[in-house]
Amino acid sequence: MKNMPDPATALHATIGQRVDLIDTPAPVVDLDAMDRNIQRMADFARKHQVRWRPHAKMHKCAELALRLQQSGAGGACVQKVSEAEALAAGGVTDIYISNEVIAPAKLARVARLAQQLAVRGGRLAIAVDSLEGITRLAEAMESAMSDAGIDVFVEIDVGQGRCGVLPGEPAVALAQAVTQHARLHFAGLHAYHGRAQHLRGAAERREAIAVAVLAARATRDALLVAGLPVPLVTGAGTGTLVHEAASGIYGELQAGSFLFMDADYASNEREPAQPAFEHALFIKTQVISCRDTHAVCDAGHKSHAIDSGLPQVAFLPPDRALRYANGGDEHGLLFTDSPKARLPSIGRMLWLIPGHCDPTVNLHGHLIGVRGGLAHGVVERILRVDARGALT
Amino acid sequence: MKNMPDPATALHATIGQRVDLIDTPAPVVDLDAMDRNIQRMADFARKHQVRWRPHAKMHKCAELALRLQQSGAGGACVQKVSEAEALAAGGVTDIYISNEVIAPAKLARVARLAQQLAVRGGRLAIAVDSLEGITRLAEAMESAMSDAGIDVFVEIDVGQGRCGVLPGEPAVALAQAVTQHARLHFAGLHAYHGRAQHLRGAAERREAIAVAVLAARATRDALLVAGLPVPLVTGAGTGTLVHEAASGIYGELQAGSFLFMDADYASNEREPAQPAFEHALFIKTQVISCRDTHAVCDAGHKSHAIDSGLPQVAFLPPDRALRYANGGDEHGLLFTDSPKARLPSIGRMLWLIPGHCDPTVNLHGHLIGVRGGLAHGVVERILRVDARGALT
Repeated sequence: MKNMPDPATALHATIGQRVDLIDTPAPVVDLDAMDRNIQRMADFARKHQVRWRPHAKMHKCAELALRLQQSGAGGACVQKVSEAEALAAGGVTDIYISNEVIAPAKLARVARLAQQLAVRGGRLAIAVDSLEGITRLAEAMESAMSDAGIDVFVEIDVGQGRCGVLPGEPAVALAQAVTQHARLHFAGLHAYHGRAQHLRGAAERREAIAVAVLAARATRDALLVAGLPVPLVTGAGTGTLVHEAASGIYGELQAGSFLFMDADYASNEREPAQPAFEHALFIKTQVISCRDTHAVCDAGHKSHAIDSGLPQVAFLPPDRALRYANGGDEHGLLFTDSPKARLPSIGRMLWLIPGHCDPTVNLHGHLIGVRGGLAHGVVERILRVDARGALT
Repeated sequence: MKNMPDPATALHATIGQRVDLIDTPAPVVDLDAMDRNIQRMADFARKHQVRWRPHAKMHKCAELALRLQQSGAGGACVQKVSEAEALAAGGVTDIYISNEVIAPAKLARVARLAQQLAVRGGRLAIAVDSLEGITRLAEAMESAMSDAGIDVFVEIDVGQGRCGVLPGEPAVALAQAVTQHARLHFAGLHAYHGRAQHLRGAAERREAIAVAVLAARATRDALLVAGLPVPLVTGAGTGTLVHEAASGIYGELQAGSFLFMDADYASNEREPAQPAFEHALFIKTQVISCRDTHAVCDAGHKSHAIDSGLPQVAFLPPDRALRYANGGDEHGLLFTDSPKARLPSIGRMLWLIPGHCDPTVNLHGHLIGVRGGLAHGVVERILRVDARGALT
């Protein structure tokens, strides 16, 4: 356990402490549920014979990236150079920055990190989607005082509408540009469809990924015709991974949220082949004010992200359900919609399932890992969020 | 400047650095604009002869709380015990926890902090809205190994619909309960109307605060009849402070956002008497990907809060305006709605005005303070966000 001297982030939980004594609000990981999620994902990847490189933008903990590797994951994905640096400092040596990096100051750090990881027997990969980006990356790699190389994935837009070049010839042109630089190794295609993850209907997600698979396959074939073999197509998230895994074209799954499962992913219509991932990240909260109309708890949107919906109140029977409404930065409002339900009284502890894990984890310096369940378990470990606030 | 060894939060800005070299995304404070906002607020409070105790839940920096005190502010408000501890560690000695605290473990910390501040010649205040809360607070104060007291404000709900008892007799009963405990000093009424701050129309805000003033005055009068003088009525935010200041009943303004001014507050229809607060907090961002349809920048909702709307792209002439759309945790999408406007190219720096300052600041370990304007200025100071992530 790493104690922080900073009073603002001082942990009010200790190893061996009973769950009911953890002060609120607090991010708590059900380690048993998390371990089951890892096992389900490992089994799934083995069955489909695909690599998995879970996205560490979700959990941001070097300890968890290493834990996933021990269970078969092949390295970690990140979105930011500073996330890669934080994981590397924590012992992770196989890292893919699945995003475009443009600033020369950052690319110099990329080149240094590539060298550091190579010395440790690991490797660094990065995504590109422009000639400008490739040129700048090559310059940074050549300016570095080392002969380390970097794996380069060409990002194609398979329906996300964000970064990436269009599939087909634009991607071929970029891949050819990559091969012009000695330090850049063309590693394949990045074909992640983020928007598809959150389509609620199973059929919608299936159709979206069918289109992504067509685009990825056509691009791979065009590259082959141009004389460029494609070592790997990488992509997929927790919402769609069954389709990428069965596609025959994706060789690597980047899904990260399966580890903690959030309320948003759980709202998707279930795909039968999808492993039954469980919620493993919760916000423990406490009622601090009570009226006839509503109760107020101490977890607001400084405790959990609200970009993908408000949290849900967990572990209550349907006829006692509580509805969480936004009460601002530091408060949540609790309402009952059932006449039988009673509002919780002052001091009552409740558990929230966050709408979206990734930005929720980013709000916290540590996650409190509990073994033995949330009703009667104890604190087993404190997980440091190494890449919290890692933006550059 | 405090350097952090943690690679994730390593600062990629240094004192004396030119603004254009600050790496992105980065939270940047225009110190000249901030200083003008402080002067405007100090002049306003002096003219209306009211105290001002700016809410530090917004800036979370002990250095800024002290800066405000030097300009006439009377201490700082916070929402959390850990925020109070962080400010106290940074030298602030007059702190009001304007929120209900219920957990015995936290109340023990409250009692310790009350003692620490008293020793340093300062004082601690706290809000209550239940008999249970008063009893628990009194027990914690009496269990502490000191004779320090604490100022206690009874929170009344003047339209917010969150914490607080109803105005009138329920508040009288609580104030009487406070006076039953030797260590608790009844300090007055907390009558903050948070919802009113964000009503867009000036007339709507005026009417909402007129009702709040009636409720606060009726409660004060009922307390006087019961033999309890009311030393202070405290409340008001940046959206409504002109009305509380002119009310004759509010003696203290808690407004905090005026310091940085966010896009949400700037969207309010301006009240003529309102000081002309300027935007002083910006997110510097950079274009990392470009297509015919849109550009993508490196600031997503891990860089800025989106609870009160998306950020706005600053400093562009109307015919070159860019519209920011949510691109997820780490990306922003930029669109042009004008046929004349051109999408920015890769590497272009842009400035975003966050929708809501408070949770935006909470995402960052440091704020980069710039002197001399955002076009040609230099980094003058790094402001440590002492109470970042202070939730308990």
